[in-house]
Amino acid sequence: MSNSTAIVPPAHLIEKSKMVTRYLEEILPPVDKYPQVLHEAIRYTVMAGGKRLRPVLALTAYEVCGGTGDEIMPAAAALELIHTYSLIHDDLPCMDDDDLRRGMPTLHKKYNEAIALLAGDALHDLAFRLMAQTGRTEAVMELALAIGTGGMLAGQMADMDAEGRQLSLDEVTYIHVHKTGKLIRGALRIGAILANADAETLEAITIYGEKIGLAFQIIDDILDITGDEVTLGKPVGSDSKNNKATYPAVIGLEKSQEIAGILIDEAVTTIEARINRPQSFIEIARFIGSRRH
Amino acid sequence: MSNSTAIVPPAHLIEKSKMVTRYLEEILPPVDKYPQVLHEAIRYTVMAGGKRLRPVLALTAYEVCGGTGDEIMPAAAALELIHTYSLIHDDLPCMDDDDLRRGMPTLHKKYNEAIALLAGDALHDLAFRLMAQTGRTEAVMELALAIGTGGMLAGQMADMDAEGRQLSLDEVTYIHVHKTGKLIRGALRIGAILANADAETLEAITIYGEKIGLAFQIIDDILDITGDEVTLGKPVGSDSKNNKATYPAVIGLEKSQEIAGILIDEAVTTIEARINRPQSFIEIARFIGSRRH
Repeated sequence: MSNSTAIVPPAHLIEKSKMVTRYLEEILPPVDKYPQVLHEAIRYTVMAGGKRLRPVLALTAYEVCGGTGDEIMPAAAALELIHTYSLIHDDLPCMDDDDLRRGMPTLHKKYNEAIALLAGDALHDLAFRLMAQTGRTEAVMELALAIGTGGMLAGQMADMDAEGRQLSLDEVTYIHVHKTGKLIRGALRIGAILANADAETLEAITIYGEKIGLAFQIIDDILDITGDEVTLGKPVGSDSKNNKATYPAVIGLEKSQEIAGILIDEAVTTIEARINRPQSFIEIARFIGSRRH
Repeated sequence: MSNSTAIVPPAHLIEKSKMVTRYLEEILPPVDKYPQVLHEAIRYTVMAGGKRLRPVLALTAYEVCGGTGDEIMPAAAALELIHTYSLIHDDLPCMDDDDLRRGMPTLHKKYNEAIALLAGDALHDLAFRLMAQTGRTEAVMELALAIGTGGMLAGQMADMDAEGRQLSLDEVTYIHVHKTGKLIRGALRIGAILANADAETLEAITIYGEKIGLAFQIIDDILDITGDEVTLGKPVGSDSKNNKATYPAVIGLEKSQEIAGILIDEAVTTIEARINRPQSFIEIARFIGSRRH
């Protein structure tokens, strides 16, 4: 990879991540209101942490493209809720059947399957409510396209189809691009669209998003092998144990690291060449390339 | 009830229902495109029939309020997809664990649980994509509010909470108003909002929607006892067998029929007194009051 040691997250990334967490805390449905258990389950999962990567990407794109309004906050929150909903449903027994997530019991383990199902549905729904608050149907549409059967859901389905068989590099790439990449790409595009970016800027940000999205998931695959359990929040080697489609399983660790590095470099080159004030984007790409959990 | 024998559905209702089915046929994701199995599962459930009640209500409200554009069709379709998604997730083993729906195997029986879960998620998502096509974030917001934890999901949760215990009339009413009523109310409001109805008309249509929504579900409860299996598409008495929260279980059949009749009459009175050209609404209310399946 481009950076051989982990780097400290850029300050603006930490700042934005905290801002999103505060906003989520504020707007999630109150736990003293019926259905309490569902609202508790939602907070349990959403407030369990996470990097808030997708909101941070949306906020960064919005800022870089000159956005100055406050419609970006509900959009950023919506992206985190969609990510959380997808994790909850992915963890269910009929899907990946995972017991741990970010070092804590998964939602169906903490409560039960029905509550996990409905909490995921509630987050899915709440995300669109928040996206509607932007007053821009283009943003609603962009989110829907990113996560539908042409996007994230295609990746979830392909991931399921892949179980128990040896995949080609193209097949793993398809899964990663859809299951992880489409929402990351969508987050950046939504930020740019809300800031009324011109077509060329939007295109450059889209390409950047596709490259860091794929790199992010390849690095996730790598960390499942090289990371440590405490920082990962789940057992090391769980992908391999669960026969998950990963880059290292298909092309080995070294080659995977090389490809992730190339993608990060390409993302940086694209954004440097094609937009003004690319610095925040470069920092995020480098940070993703260096992450250790 | 107001009418003691079943009446033929009004012609405009049949016409609208067919129009919605044709539109759905056209816009659902193609089965020859990946992920094929998910697209097949979606068509299997959406095209299995059903009255298209929610789309018909939206189309009627739109028409009565003077709407003349074509943004109502994606909105109408979105409402049917949300209804279908809620049925698919409700039928899952961790929820009601139902094997039959409209006389056919439920989706998780026909395919498997993971496909049913993802098909529900896909419909949820596609519905918001269609709603975004209206170009009106108020419509997106209205849908999200109708089905979130302040709406349909609160009803699904209350229904689960109710399992295995004797309920009060207030509790069953809460379930019906949220689980069934909110989407019916939302469908009417979305039609009216898209046609730019004034505040008074919107309010009258909202009250009408609340009354026919509750009546519709009470009559559903009644038909589970008095209906026949062929027209219902599921075993008679399944609510009672599954210990579901129903009006007849709490206040008996006769009193339930009486209340449904009163609600239909009130819906008719409200709409007659408060809007111009109430005829289509009256016919629909009467038809709901008389339905036998």
